[in-house]
Amino acid sequence: MGTVYLTRKAEFAASHYYHSPELSAEENLRLFGKCNNPNGHGHNYTLEVTVKGAVDATSGFVVDLKQLKEIMNREVLEAMDHRFLNKEVPEFETLIPTTENIAIAAWRRLEPKLKAAQLHRVRVYETPDLFVDFYGEA
Amino acid sequence: MGTVYLTRKAEFAASHYYHSPELSAEENLRLFGKCNNPNGHGHNYTLEVTVKGAVDATSGFVVDLKQLKEIMNREVLEAMDHRFLNKEVPEFETLIPTTENIAIAAWRRLEPKLKAAQLHRVRVYETPDLFVDFYGEA
Amino acid sequence: MGTVYLTRKAEFAASHYYHSPELSAEENLRLFGKCNNPNGHGHNYTLEVTVKGAVDATSGFVVDLKQLKEIMNREVLEAMDHRFLNKEVPEFETLIPTTENIAIAAWRRLEPKLKAAQLHRVRVYETPDLFVDFYGEA
Amino acid sequence: MGTVYLTRKAEFAASHYYHSPELSAEENLRLFGKCNNPNGHGHNYTLEVTVKGAVDATSGFVVDLKQLKEIMNREVLEAMDHRFLNKEVPEFETLIPTTENIAIAAWRRLEPKLKAAQLHRVRVYETPDLFVDFYGEA
Amino acid sequence: MGTVYLTRKAEFAASHYYHSPELSAEENLRLFGKCNNPNGHGHNYTLEVTVKGAVDATSGFVVDLKQLKEIMNREVLEAMDHRFLNKEVPEFETLIPTTENIAIAAWRRLEPKLKAAQLHRVRVYETPDLFVDFYGEA
Amino acid sequence: MGTVYLTRKAEFAASHYYHSPELSAEENLRLFGKCNNPNGHGHNYTLEVTVKGAVDATSGFVVDLKQLKEIMNREVLEAMDHRFLNKEVPEFETLIPTTENIAIAAWRRLEPKLKAAQLHRVRVYETPDLFVDFYGEA
Repeated sequence: MGTVYLTRKAEFAASHYYHSPELSAEENLRLFGKCNNPNGHGHNYTLEVTVKGAVDATSGFVVDLKQLKEIMNREVLEAMDHRFLNKEVPEFETLIPTTENIAIAAWRRLEPKLKAAQLHRVRVYETPDLFVDFYGEA
Repeated sequence: MGTVYLTRKAEFAASHYYHSPELSAEENLRLFGKCNNPNGHGHNYTLEVTVKGAVDATSGFVVDLKQLKEIMNREVLEAMDHRFLNKEVPEFETLIPTTENIAIAAWRRLEPKLKAAQLHRVRVYETPDLFVDFYGEA
Repeated sequence: MGTVYLTRKAEFAASHYYHSPELSAEENLRLFGKCNNPNGHGHNYTLEVTVKGAVDATSGFVVDLKQLKEIMNREVLEAMDHRFLNKEVPEFETLIPTTENIAIAAWRRLEPKLKAAQLHRVRVYETPDLFVDFYGEA
Repeated sequence: MGTVYLTRKAEFAASHYYHSPELSAEENLRLFGKCNNPNGHGHNYTLEVTVKGAVDATSGFVVDLKQLKEIMNREVLEAMDHRFLNKEVPEFETLIPTTENIAIAAWRRLEPKLKAAQLHRVRVYETPDLFVDFYGEA
Repeated sequence: MGTVYLTRKAEFAASHYYHSPELSAEENLRLFGKCNNPNGHGHNYTLEVTVKGAVDATSGFVVDLKQLKEIMNREVLEAMDHRFLNKEVPEFETLIPTTENIAIAAWRRLEPKLKAAQLHRVRVYETPDLFVDFYGEA
Repeated sequence: MGTVYLTRKAEFAASHYYHSPELSAEENLRLFGKCNNPNGHGHNYTLEVTVKGAVDATSGFVVDLKQLKEIMNREVLEAMDHRFLNKEVPEFETLIPTTENIAIAAWRRLEPKLKAAQLHRVRVYETPDLFVDFYGEA
């Protein structure tokens, strides 16, 4: 039928801050500015998940939308929504929760769970004016 | 001058429902849920058409925008806008009008009519949170 | 604490068509154009519900957001989402489901159920470019 | 020249959580759900400030836009942007930083500083689907 | 049936600049900054027209949408779209084309032409973050 | 850590018109329509700049966001914002300032200045419904 790319969006609200243990307090402040505030600040993140595959002749679907929504909820949103990312999401005990690292973390959570279609891209918007795409590239 | 990708959006309002003759009534309901209602329901679809080509040195255009708009209107919007897709658009007498199949149908309608530039991608949004891309891949 | 106006949005997908039994076929077509197609066409409607009240000193809320969401779902969205409005929503057996009449119908469904705060306005978007406000005025 | 209402938007990113000292832990959790997490979570808030006044015959302005932007920055954004509202904004040491209370706090910060035009409304969006308006009403 | 407020949006692209003959060159630059550039700069303006009236029992309309669109096109868009407002729109030979004055000019053009329903509000967005409302108030 | 694509948006307001010295007055009008008006008209352009690179293990960044913002401001926005592109931006003394040519010009301004990460794509929106992507392809 043809190979298509289907994208589903979801939103989550989380807080974070940026701090590197390899840098001094002055270097952290210079590099991260207001984002270095250890109390945290927050965003309405938008997660876009794109899967790639052939359209099924019976259903007309590349992926079952209810299953995709459930996987996104279970693997990413339940872990990150209404959370302080640095303190409550295991990946960010050691990694700084930048938009880059959130996109990679979401990919790693989603990719093993998607059976029916291939994960093609994860996009994370931190604000409407800033977003990161990850395609699983090393 | 350089190769660019130009995208133009248009909207259309249509109704549809999902039903596969290969599945039982129970299977249809389980797979398609509320979308299985035979009375139909509707959406404000957004169609994005992307063409690829070299920028013309005289006009500064990759494609004549008025022509592109006319082709989109004549080939897709006049057929699908304010229509019940299952009943009134020939492709969907046999295919289920999922977002996937609408994107493929739009590609097949547009591709033979675009002369000046090459069709690169058709994107169809069913809602702001769900969209499908088709690049003409088998 | 002060009187505030809180607005919550929700979306529903429905189909409809416009036809008046008081008009001839020609008059219906002239007045309603493409919207007169009896097969129906559809929209992603946005419903905005605004309630007015004093901020509660304990909760900081004018209204419990979970309750407001439940009332919107139960009274409006379950009745109208994924429905052909003319055939499946009682108000529209006799009233034409224009954006005007959908806004009034939503008000009448919501107003008796809102106890904690006063319904101030119902807004319905048919498309991003067309919306109707109803404040309960005769 | 006529009386007009001018609205300017700005965004800020902050974190917050909801907890009432008057309620038990169980009541807080039941009322506030995920928002009760004391680590906080965050949002991209949008602040809309509307001023009302006569259009000046010389400038064509109801208010000097640079001054309005400066006042919004100095009085609200510098205090709330990239902050944990409960811990770092004085109003929210005792008030729960709900959208309702943020709108009222913004009004009280802005109203005494606006000289050239009258503050008419403060709107705060917590998400694109939830916002509160305050007009200074008791 | 009830009194409703219907709003229709339209867009136009225009250029303008700000200069007051009552002010010196220095004062113009201080007051208007970059907007004082006499070559002009431009915007995608959004015009929102709100009419108020009773819902017609036969049509379900407060106003004929095709007529409203025609009036908006003829009275405002044809005059302002793809124009340098200072040079090509009569009102702005003497008035500075600020968002405030564009909203008032649009009201004065539209109000005498609307017969079926009463003009309630004209809103003009200069950018998504700045807009002006005019209700016909002196 | 992985290769990511980070995109930052910015807006600028400019005016332009379309005219080719190689075409007659009639041909210019037929090809460019309303855009041929030599007084110019304008848009709120959106510039999206996408850079590609590996995530830095210390900062979690693919690129320093403050530096990226400064480069975008200095190389593109200061030159084009609040300008009549045909008269005030050197590239457009000879090239028509179509969206295609603005995207290419922005790429050529940005690419030599980006050191930390590789420029991947420049996207320019003329309106929400029309945009051009340039990837540096000949």
